[in-house]
Amino acid sequence: MPRKKQGDQSLRALLRLPLGEGVDLSSHDASATPGGPVGKAAGVAATALLGPRLADLQERLYAASTAGDRRRLLLVLQGMDTSGKGGTVKHVIGYLNPSGCRIQAFKAPTEEERAHPFLWRVTKALPRPGEIGIFDRSHYEDVLIARVRALAPPAEIEERYGEIARFEKSLTDDGVTLVKVFLHISHEEQRARLLKRLDNPEKHWKFDPGDIEERSRWPAYQEAYELALERCASPRAPWYLVPADRKWYRNWAISTLLLEHLEDLDPQYPRADFDVAESRRRLLAS
Amino acid sequence: MPRKKQGDQSLRALLRLPLGEGVDLSSHDASATPGGPVGKAAGVAATALLGPRLADLQERLYAASTAGDRRRLLLVLQGMDTSGKGGTVKHVIGYLNPSGCRIQAFKAPTEEERAHPFLWRVTKALPRPGEIGIFDRSHYEDVLIARVRALAPPAEIEERYGEIARFEKSLTDDGVTLVKVFLHISHEEQRARLLKRLDNPEKHWKFDPGDIEERSRWPAYQEAYELALERCASPRAPWYLVPADRKWYRNWAISTLLLEHLEDLDPQYPRADFDVAESRRRLLAS
Repeated sequence: MPRKKQGDQSLRALLRLPLGEGVDLSSHDASATPGGPVGKAAGVAATALLGPRLADLQERLYAASTAGDRRRLLLVLQGMDTSGKGGTVKHVIGYLNPSGCRIQAFKAPTEEERAHPFLWRVTKALPRPGEIGIFDRSHYEDVLIARVRALAPPAEIEERYGEIARFEKSLTDDGVTLVKVFLHISHEEQRARLLKRLDNPEKHWKFDPGDIEERSRWPAYQEAYELALERCASPRAPWYLVPADRKWYRNWAISTLLLEHLEDLDPQYPRADFDVAESRRRLLAS
Repeated sequence: MPRKKQGDQSLRALLRLPLGEGVDLSSHDASATPGGPVGKAAGVAATALLGPRLADLQERLYAASTAGDRRRLLLVLQGMDTSGKGGTVKHVIGYLNPSGCRIQAFKAPTEEERAHPFLWRVTKALPRPGEIGIFDRSHYEDVLIARVRALAPPAEIEERYGEIARFEKSLTDDGVTLVKVFLHISHEEQRARLLKRLDNPEKHWKFDPGDIEERSRWPAYQEAYELALERCASPRAPWYLVPADRKWYRNWAISTLLLEHLEDLDPQYPRADFDVAESRRRLLAS
């Protein structure tokens, strides 16, 4: 497991992948629950308690932006098929005001997107000041599936790691708090989740025989993830590894990570820039 | 109140503004609860029961789109300041999978938007097949505030009613189910809601002294709404008037309207277009 910083009791410190070290995904237990409540019932209850605090902080962040605060947060979700990216979006948004969120799922690039540099479509989907952005997949696909399936020349893919790092630096310089999460599931859990889709006719539409093809490339994907997690990490744009075999832990951990980052931002409601008493008088007379 | 079609027990029939008749908003009680549960507690409970059915139908709609079904739904929310458009978005989305929703709040148009025809920005925000779109304000602003504040020449505004009607016809022809809702609040309730914002420093950011200016134009806005509700309505794109002084009723009514429209669409999970048994064998061997 990643080492915990001395004295720092945060989940961030616990799940953050150490910088400048190789990443070995096989050494991380996908069914672990580091720092989490004991068991599912306690986890679900603890997560529900985070909801109102998340909602309050989101409203403050949005309110602050109306007075010129440019800060915003971007949650980037990556992980193998069935690792729960969509489920996380659904869960997290349940606590937030969707009007202040900008959600984007990145699928295979369209023809128009392929005609542009790979960061183009990502740039268009960024959160604005005060918003919380959520990416279900992201620019990392361009060094993951692109690498495994050789969708671009190797030299071009090599270039992209640096481009991503510079891009992310430009974001954090501009007031974006980046929360990059790798949802780590095991090979066995993926099989179980795909089987569940196959065994329920109402879930067949979610299944693509190509998913089994992709699964057969599991080692190559793990390696591509290890490279991306290693090369595209910095003090202000680190990666968090969230064990995701247990959905209740995944939900708790990501809610907690969001909460810790928002608490750090500590956004404040702006003070009224108008005469409250006078507005009150005029309103009562209207 | 709008007359109920004989035999049609739906809320749609009850709230739909009759076509080809003048609309007199003053004849509609904003605190009424037509067709609704009796009282707040019953209303909240009844609304919660709609959640799982809404979620199921939304998933079916989305699933059907993966097999080529182009149908989608667009909820258009209009109403005076504080009528609860944002609150409705938040509430409704709570029942849906946000990944299948496309939410857009329309503010004062940007410079780029003003350089284009008024429907341009709306077209860009439309739901794709399988999605549920939610507009917090919409193209109707261009015949509402634009009319009241004379933001365009009168002849141009006159043109827009026809443009909107043709635009909406093109949408319904293309498989969009339009659910246009006017949230009807009373002059008194607006004062109470604005006062509540003034009396809470954490809500001051939501208040703009300009809101009182706009409020002083109440009769002109009501007239502009009556014109829009009258002129831009057709059998496939009618307006629903939802009394909105009581938030619990508003939430129940809009959830019910959505449910009735989705039940009408009756979207079906597509059948597997692959060999399920073979995929199962390959998956178990993987």
